[in-house]
Amino acid sequence: MSQGRVEKERILLLTEGLSTPLSAKTATGILRYALSQVVGLIDSTKIGKTAGELLGVGGDTPVYSSIDQAPNADVLIVGIAPAGGDLPKSLRRAICRAIECGMRVESGMHFILNDDPEFSSLAKNSGSTLVDLRKNNEFELARFDSFNPNCLRLHTVGNDCCVGKMVVSFELARGLNQSGCDTKFVATGQTGMLLEGDGCAVDSVVSDFIGGATERLVLAWQNHEAIVVEGQGSLANPRYSGVTMGLLHGCMPDGLIMCYESGRSEVVGLEPMPIPPLEQVLSTYMALANLHHTCRFIGVAINSRLLSDEEYIKEKEQVENRLNLPAWDVLREGISGLVDEALKLRVQLGKG
Amino acid sequence: MSQGRVEKERILLLTEGLSTPLSAKTATGILRYALSQVVGLIDSTKIGKTAGELLGVGGDTPVYSSIDQAPNADVLIVGIAPAGGDLPKSLRRAICRAIECGMRVESGMHFILNDDPEFSSLAKNSGSTLVDLRKNNEFELARFDSFNPNCLRLHTVGNDCCVGKMVVSFELARGLNQSGCDTKFVATGQTGMLLEGDGCAVDSVVSDFIGGATERLVLAWQNHEAIVVEGQGSLANPRYSGVTMGLLHGCMPDGLIMCYESGRSEVVGLEPMPIPPLEQVLSTYMALANLHHTCRFIGVAINSRLLSDEEYIKEKEQVENRLNLPAWDVLREGISGLVDEALKLRVQLGKG
Repeated sequence: MSQGRVEKERILLLTEGLSTPLSAKTATGILRYALSQVVGLIDSTKIGKTAGELLGVGGDTPVYSSIDQAPNADVLIVGIAPAGGDLPKSLRRAICRAIECGMRVESGMHFILNDDPEFSSLAKNSGSTLVDLRKNNEFELARFDSFNPNCLRLHTVGNDCCVGKMVVSFELARGLNQSGCDTKFVATGQTGMLLEGDGCAVDSVVSDFIGGATERLVLAWQNHEAIVVEGQGSLANPRYSGVTMGLLHGCMPDGLIMCYESGRSEVVGLEPMPIPPLEQVLSTYMALANLHHTCRFIGVAINSRLLSDEEYIKEKEQVENRLNLPAWDVLREGISGLVDEALKLRVQLGKG
Repeated sequence: MSQGRVEKERILLLTEGLSTPLSAKTATGILRYALSQVVGLIDSTKIGKTAGELLGVGGDTPVYSSIDQAPNADVLIVGIAPAGGDLPKSLRRAICRAIECGMRVESGMHFILNDDPEFSSLAKNSGSTLVDLRKNNEFELARFDSFNPNCLRLHTVGNDCCVGKMVVSFELARGLNQSGCDTKFVATGQTGMLLEGDGCAVDSVVSDFIGGATERLVLAWQNHEAIVVEGQGSLANPRYSGVTMGLLHGCMPDGLIMCYESGRSEVVGLEPMPIPPLEQVLSTYMALANLHHTCRFIGVAINSRLLSDEEYIKEKEQVENRLNLPAWDVLREGISGLVDEALKLRVQLGKG
């Protein structure tokens, strides 16, 4: 993985009963960017399948029925990200066994492993460590008076949750670095934190302090030439729009990237609530972002996993015309187009 | 006070060192609506003054230097609402003494009285009760599928925090009730909760669940003909805009009331950050509120506490012309104008 994490550890991903691209978002992210460390998935309902078959990434990575059936590993990562973040009961047995075996267990649930009597008692006996990525102690308000004027602040936003903002943020930061612009990926959710080794899961911050928690992330890394702040939720998903809003104002971005999944018409988890037209969502972000800091969209990231090559070409042309912005699926076409737009903005703003 | 609270209890308000209208927001609200129960303020730095002199409400209510100097009371209410909600150390002595005397202590701080070893140990000995209004256990996501179509949902919003949204909400609910429309004031902050005896301090909810906590309030009281959901913060105050957003989408209002304080040009606590023009703030609220539910502004509430009568008349005329909406300071002119607009909306929507 990247800077902050131990790169030689062997990882098992726990996706018990939930090995689908939407449910196993965290596992998918790890498989995409840290595949060489992953020794397998644990899902007793999918034995014999591979990660590639189930999640569309991870190739031949095998699925095991239990910790004892799987190869030895150093870490068990809870690989699912269910709405509400409670721990499904079906995951307890594997977590207990991993702790008994002395493995570290990392979780991004709202459910806190360390607060669970069974888990913490087992960990005490085995010397295992329990890492709760959503545990925080953020109780500071934002000040907004000491942003580094030379650091370009980029931020990914979406028309719904689970559209690929983390992937685009991670790829964009990597692409900018490769093109010579010293850039930090600022993780704001559990999968990003697992990949980057730092960050803050802002959706678990008490709502009065979400702006302050985000500002703290910016201040911590604004010594870089650019930062890419990972987005969360969506202004158009009323379950999570408060989180999205706090992030947007907390980082006061110079440039935004609009992310959406082609073919999705209803808000995830709130079906049949329709997702508003992209134009409307885009102009709403612009209205909010520009209340206190000048900001513009630099491009659109299409998640086209459900489209054929032909359908994708059509979709790209249509969305570029509709929004008058360049658009790419960065997994199909690479990140260079978006990197170029970010560097253009940097020059325009006199930040590079 | 209103429905939920014991109405015969005697109240002391603790505003130690912070007896100003902005700092002592909670005390001000209690003095405005429950004056007959208040026996005094505790502020050792303002002995000899009256509440009226210090806060502009509460008339001759006297200020005492300590619990022992003050008349007997049943409840000590922490009357301040500092940014960040931490407990100033200067308040500890009075709180300890109140607990020792067996009084109930109610607080809306983010600082939790029950988690403080000294307070909880004293309370255990004296039998005193500690009430933390910002303590909650909200971990449910919103569903948005079971709102009562016959209940009119009204919501107050502002161009900054501390502009009078609680007062307008409380007055509007009372006014609607007096005009025969069975209406519930839905408290979303500590002062509102103290007055109403129920509600939820949504700014202390973990940000992923603010929509869910708000929805739960609506569902609990949508058997009324109308509800007035108290607003918090502002989309234009980037410290708290996440809270504001979560509330706005959580209650999906039919009608909004725009609240602002005349003469204020900078965001409270973030000076010299300018407050954007009212037109811009209003259109931003409209863009967000209408993403999933049709909604319109029904009027403007002016907080004109700093204006002379003449200045107020000019301000009212100007803002009505600028926003093309009727406007009142409801404390100067009464609530009937806003009640009429709410009832008009109710008829238009076929809800009454």
